[in-house]
Amino acid sequence: MNLIDMGKRAKAAGGLLGRAPTDVKNAALLAIADALEANAEAILSANTLDLTDARAKGLSEAMLDRLNLHNRIGEIAADVRSVATLPDPVGATIEARTMPNGLQVSKRRTPLGVIGVIYESRPNVTVDVISLCLKSGNAVILRGGSETLRSNMALVKVIRDALAPFSADIPADAIQYIDDTDRRYVLELLKLHQYVDMIIPRGGNTLHMFCRENSVIPVITGGIGICHIFVDETADLDAALAIIHNAKVQRPSVCNAAEVLLVHEKVAADFLPRVVDHLGASGVTFRAEPRALAALNGSADARVSPAGAEDFDTEWLALILSVKVVSGLDEAITHIQHHHTQHSDSILTENPDHATQFIDAIDSAAVYVNASTRFTDGSQLGLGAEMAISTQKLHARGPLALEELTTYKWVIIGEGHVRG
Amino acid sequence: MNLIDMGKRAKAAGGLLGRAPTDVKNAALLAIADALEANAEAILSANTLDLTDARAKGLSEAMLDRLNLHNRIGEIAADVRSVATLPDPVGATIEARTMPNGLQVSKRRTPLGVIGVIYESRPNVTVDVISLCLKSGNAVILRGGSETLRSNMALVKVIRDALAPFSADIPADAIQYIDDTDRRYVLELLKLHQYVDMIIPRGGNTLHMFCRENSVIPVITGGIGICHIFVDETADLDAALAIIHNAKVQRPSVCNAAEVLLVHEKVAADFLPRVVDHLGASGVTFRAEPRALAALNGSADARVSPAGAEDFDTEWLALILSVKVVSGLDEAITHIQHHHTQHSDSILTENPDHATQFIDAIDSAAVYVNASTRFTDGSQLGLGAEMAISTQKLHARGPLALEELTTYKWVIIGEGHVRG
Repeated sequence: MNLIDMGKRAKAAGGLLGRAPTDVKNAALLAIADALEANAEAILSANTLDLTDARAKGLSEAMLDRLNLHNRIGEIAADVRSVATLPDPVGATIEARTMPNGLQVSKRRTPLGVIGVIYESRPNVTVDVISLCLKSGNAVILRGGSETLRSNMALVKVIRDALAPFSADIPADAIQYIDDTDRRYVLELLKLHQYVDMIIPRGGNTLHMFCRENSVIPVITGGIGICHIFVDETADLDAALAIIHNAKVQRPSVCNAAEVLLVHEKVAADFLPRVVDHLGASGVTFRAEPRALAALNGSADARVSPAGAEDFDTEWLALILSVKVVSGLDEAITHIQHHHTQHSDSILTENPDHATQFIDAIDSAAVYVNASTRFTDGSQLGLGAEMAISTQKLHARGPLALEELTTYKWVIIGEGHVRG
Repeated sequence: MNLIDMGKRAKAAGGLLGRAPTDVKNAALLAIADALEANAEAILSANTLDLTDARAKGLSEAMLDRLNLHNRIGEIAADVRSVATLPDPVGATIEARTMPNGLQVSKRRTPLGVIGVIYESRPNVTVDVISLCLKSGNAVILRGGSETLRSNMALVKVIRDALAPFSADIPADAIQYIDDTDRRYVLELLKLHQYVDMIIPRGGNTLHMFCRENSVIPVITGGIGICHIFVDETADLDAALAIIHNAKVQRPSVCNAAEVLLVHEKVAADFLPRVVDHLGASGVTFRAEPRALAALNGSADARVSPAGAEDFDTEWLALILSVKVVSGLDEAITHIQHHHTQHSDSILTENPDHATQFIDAIDSAAVYVNASTRFTDGSQLGLGAEMAISTQKLHARGPLALEELTTYKWVIIGEGHVRG
């Protein structure tokens, strides 16, 4: 395993892929989708070995489900085909102006070059990442989790083989996989700044901090969401109930699901019991701070328990909702500012001034008024597929879709221009 | 010196400044400019102390000139006033769309929050950085070089005092200076990721690598330019002579000055002697590789010497030009790809296909055709003043002007929208 060599080959391959015509990239994506379906058997045999080992190690059913590719190849291939239909971000002119001295100045969108992606479980991520990098003209070096190594290797082999007819524009080295699970290779990857332009860690906070602390390459972190919903005094409470249910229950394991509910004190006594009944019927349990507990009559209800010290700083990713009563907009804003992960936060209100104040004060990737936090997603916001959700502020915030996988260069055309 | 405390105060101050009205920020900038002029005496006394120490330490005349604020306060104040005239980037809506489900989606430009700037000598940078951060709504933590400590402290005191009438919108803590020159405070600053959103090192490669290796905050590096000019076979040689002279001689100490000249073999014998005569008359000396040396008749000329091993990887920042003869466009591109710092590179050609190939192949912040590399500059490209020139690819490339000191948030307005 020689990462410097991998980096060099990725950079060279990226140089070609970065200039590949759109129709070649799209044809390659369709060939990849076909190859995934045609080679489903080989992929699933490898996946079965990973699953058997994972089960022997005692991984939870939820984890096993994340690993499992059976009956999902068709869906994964369909996602690849859908990336082929998205607009190619490369080559577009972003801004163009002629300066008073006649110099023609423009910015042209170009690929970043080489992207390193470090991720855990879920082998479908392997295919998502490859298809988005290919479409955006970037070479990629992947490093997946050890529990899915055989599934990932099978997927990468099928994909690299499928690229053979396109090798003049898309060399196989545009897609490389670090197949040694020794962690020192992650560390080596983070130091390859001469060859790698961006690192995307997809995983928990520990992985993110490891990358931020050790990388000399720019890192985009995100995907950790302690998302809040604040129900203001004037909220439409029926709509609020539906929104909270959607944000908590529809897919509790994702980063844009709501984890904390803040309720204005004037509506708490009326509204909170309705929340517990409505969401409780879907299996949600509640962690209530004292005032919320009081509004719920001290919680004779078994679904409600007193909130612990960490419960307002926890990304549950499960059917659990932390609940707090606040005195009004100011306390809601202050609470969110101290506890959110700058992912997605929503105010439910019929008061337009409060909506404006909330939007201005909350410094999150996505700030919502009267909507579920579940819309923070590339496809829901009209960007197509996404590589990650960024919760940091440089380069891109929120969905990291195709355009966010590019940079630009200034193109400056003169006629013998010199600076005066 | 408690950096966590500084970070907390900066973040709180940035929260207010980020929402300050444009007219208040502009009035504050004008007040700062006035105060700098009104307090010139105090500033210059501090500067004289720095200069005396620097002279005693034996710093070069060039370094002393960089430190010297005498007769420059008027110019510095004028620069601050000009930032007041630039458009305010904060609050602009970048994209807005209504999704098929009626959800109103837009991106709104917001300040980054808190910016940390680590820089060396040149106390005027202190004022530039403060005025750009203030206008873009960002709090700033500054860390200047030890040799200008007293000058910087005097400037910061005058500026903070001038902000007193505006403290409701612009607290003095929006501008903080690390006045202990112990390097461990740089290290502490680089770890303050809870409070600081972006680090900009302005200095040499050593400082950049120190920041990249130690920061857990995103770092924007740049300002190191090994800029190339390639004279193609078809170039207009008279125009080329003027461009090369401008790029090398006009201001040799800056990062967008040319350091390397590549000349097509078919024009080398004719053109290179003209280059040596024309630039040599302005004091330029030359480091020529063997073929260039041959084109110059083995360099009986004292201004020409054989190029050493490092001469094509050196940012001269002085009246020295490395010269090489190449067999054509391909060799020029390959040479540049291996030796440039991805700052600014130019092709001089009358062949439009070669211009296009060069633009496509050279992955630099700025790629030029028939123009001097000296235009890579915020004001020359129509952006107003700039904080730095980025040579990395994330977030911003080339001039880091007001807009590049911002990020965006997604603002999503629904009417009870839930995800299906």
